[in-house]
Amino acid sequence: MAVNETERRAMTRALELATRGPRGVNPQVGAVLLSPGGEILAEGWHQGAGTPHAEVDALSKLAPDAARGATAVVTLEPCNHTGRTGPCALALIEAGVSRVIYALDDPGAVSGGGADRLRAAGVSVEAGEQADTAEAIIGEWLTAQRLGRPEVTVKWAQSLDGRAAASDGTSQWITGPEARADVHRRRAEADAIVVGTGTVLSDDPALTARDGDALHAHQPIPVVIGTRTTPDDAAVRRHPHPPLLFDTHDLHEVMADLHARGIQSVFVEGGPTLASAFIAAGLADRVLAYIAPVLLGGNRTALTDIGVGSIDAARRLTVEEWLPLGADLLAIARPASAPEEGDA
Amino acid sequence: MAVNETERRAMTRALELATRGPRGVNPQVGAVLLSPGGEILAEGWHQGAGTPHAEVDALSKLAPDAARGATAVVTLEPCNHTGRTGPCALALIEAGVSRVIYALDDPGAVSGGGADRLRAAGVSVEAGEQADTAEAIIGEWLTAQRLGRPEVTVKWAQSLDGRAAASDGTSQWITGPEARADVHRRRAEADAIVVGTGTVLSDDPALTARDGDALHAHQPIPVVIGTRTTPDDAAVRRHPHPPLLFDTHDLHEVMADLHARGIQSVFVEGGPTLASAFIAAGLADRVLAYIAPVLLGGNRTALTDIGVGSIDAARRLTVEEWLPLGADLLAIARPASAPEEGDA
Ligand SMILES: NC(=O)c1ccc[n+]([C@@H]2O[C@H](COP(=O)([O-])OP(=O)(O)OC[C@H]3O[C@@H](n4cnc5c(N)ncnc54)[C@H](OP(=O)(O)O)[C@@H]3O)[C@@H](O)[C@H]2O)c1
Ligand SMILES: NC(=O)c1ccc[n+]([C@@H]2O[C@H](COP(=O)([O-])OP(=O)(O)OC[C@H]3O[C@@H](n4cnc5c(N)ncnc54)[C@H](OP(=O)(O)O)[C@@H]3O)[C@@H](O)[C@H]2O)c1
Repeated sequence: MAVNETERRAMTRALELATRGPRGVNPQVGAVLLSPGGEILAEGWHQGAGTPHAEVDALSKLAPDAARGATAVVTLEPCNHTGRTGPCALALIEAGVSRVIYALDDPGAVSGGGADRLRAAGVSVEAGEQADTAEAIIGEWLTAQRLGRPEVTVKWAQSLDGRAAASDGTSQWITGPEARADVHRRRAEADAIVVGTGTVLSDDPALTARDGDALHAHQPIPVVIGTRTTPDDAAVRRHPHPPLLFDTHDLHEVMADLHARGIQSVFVEGGPTLASAFIAAGLADRVLAYIAPVLLGGNRTALTDIGVGSIDAARRLTVEEWLPLGADLLAIARPASAPEEGDA
Repeated sequence: MAVNETERRAMTRALELATRGPRGVNPQVGAVLLSPGGEILAEGWHQGAGTPHAEVDALSKLAPDAARGATAVVTLEPCNHTGRTGPCALALIEAGVSRVIYALDDPGAVSGGGADRLRAAGVSVEAGEQADTAEAIIGEWLTAQRLGRPEVTVKWAQSLDGRAAASDGTSQWITGPEARADVHRRRAEADAIVVGTGTVLSDDPALTARDGDALHAHQPIPVVIGTRTTPDDAAVRRHPHPPLLFDTHDLHEVMADLHARGIQSVFVEGGPTLASAFIAAGLADRVLAYIAPVLLGGNRTALTDIGVGSIDAARRLTVEEWLPLGADLLAIARPASAPEEGDA
């Protein structure tokens, strides 16, 4: 039974409701319950870990039995798993819902299978309605689920010949204003911004995303990795978000911790040691190299050792775009070996 | 008196004649002598250093007095200087030529001034006719005249992070087939191809310009710079042109020697030591960096030290083009400080 116009409008509404929830450990999900005649009976959305899932939130607004014969329109496949809340598929069955329309499959190994359970109970199920919009809303959550950690972008600025600074360490500015503004825009899109103690101690960066002197509305959480102490008066301690300090070199451990905090994307902004460590660990899902049209020579390379001994072991990249930014060029690339998101 | 249609056609012919001469120390120049009625009386062209200039070559084909009242159409301003041949301006005056049309001014400090001398003798003179075509023919000669040496293009291939090889020295192939074919096409356009002894001893390159296995029609003269000996069985010794070996590190001296041999353009193909030495010496008029989408890390940088201590001393470039070649990118750049050819 094809999705009708009323159901389609209900999904558009459910997608709006989804965005009311917070980004985090759980996905943003919205739900609308329709009467057999097509009226909206109730709306719900997920308000974060530990709170009811969207469809249960909607059901909770109705008297018992009021959902009998109703259609549930949900942006994500109802879960089939008892966590801090019971399985939503079961809740819908028990409420007497007779039809379920959802946008995206639940990718979880434990939480998936809700659609099958619903069908087995005689519920009519339609999947994939407005899946693209749903994907645009929770795409980063899905990626982090697939990876089991936040998606990592490693960014650096370099001279054409691959240097991060001149011989004496001076580096301001290698790239021009357009490239620097681009960095700030991309920072503002990330959940967290990551540097090593080396950068904190030598540059004392604020790690905020700025538009000129103004702060962007969204600020990434600042993260500092390394065993040395971040000074009490470091600028990063005055960031709108308190910084997360990790006294370790184990990047996998740090990524797992950030994932558990609901961080879906991180922007690694160096310096050379940390950028190289992420690449060597196979943790760079995306590389952003801002290339300035200058030559520097000398020893201060933008990457140090990344564990490549021979040309056969080179880290090959697929460049998605060579993007001119003023006089500079931004290479946006992914590892050529790792399949891109959405690839078969 | 404007240039008429007959004179215009004569210039087109003179430009054809110019290309019969050899590239070298002297420019390629052609000349046509027209009778007062517009018939072609004689043609000439310059056949290389020590032979008559084009207009004198044309005059030499006529009986004495046959050029009286004639119009000389020449691709370069008649010279005003006694070298191995006498001044052409004087030869034209003495032959009784009453009108001279030429394409390009003579840039030489000693040889220039021919037009003024002709006018002072009452000859009608028109400059600039089909100057663009003439410039296309002898542009590189003009550039070398201006520079006082051949125009230098420094080329290298690098990973995105600026390495010429992996840690163990392996580098074949960093770039893909499109980039390598582009290098061979550009080699074929140069008068000479220059490497250091380091490259000869480690790679034993043929230094030919090839299209697949076939040789391009024009082959650059191979030049090796450095104090170490090029082995008797080095591939470069089997090049169609005998290699020029310079037992020195003085690049200015080498350039002066090549200029004196009539070499107008050189293509420096490394390795890192020689490329950096050319850049440090301010001898790189053009830089071609072939950037492959791979990361290598490690110590084998495509440039070594170029004498830049601080960011303020960075060698800033003007990138004329970021040219995609297959998966690679070619940056075509000139020093930002040096005015480009033709700039005010
Ligand atoms: N061009 C650019 O885009 C860019 C960006 C940022 C910074 N920079 C420049 O980079 C310079 C700082 O360089 P840097 O390399 O010292 O900075 P860094 O990469 O930010 O910090 C390096 C430090 O990170 C810690 N660390 C954490 N995890 C690590 C791991 N897995 N492996 C190794 N070390 C790990 C270590 O600190 P502990 O010793 O404390 O454990 C290490 O010394 C500054 O001059 C800055 O201006 C350039
Ligand atoms: N990525 C690329 O595009 C590319 C291109 C070519 C080669 N390579 C690689 O580069 C490596 C060779 O590197 P390389 O740097 O030794 O080669 P090189 O630059 O070709 O040769 C260096 C040598 O040139 C001589 N030289 C001449 N003029 C000099 C000057 N003004 N200053 C300093 N030295 C001068 C010196 O030799 P003497 O000691 O004999 O005086 C010096 O050791 C090979 O592995 C090759 O594969 C890479």
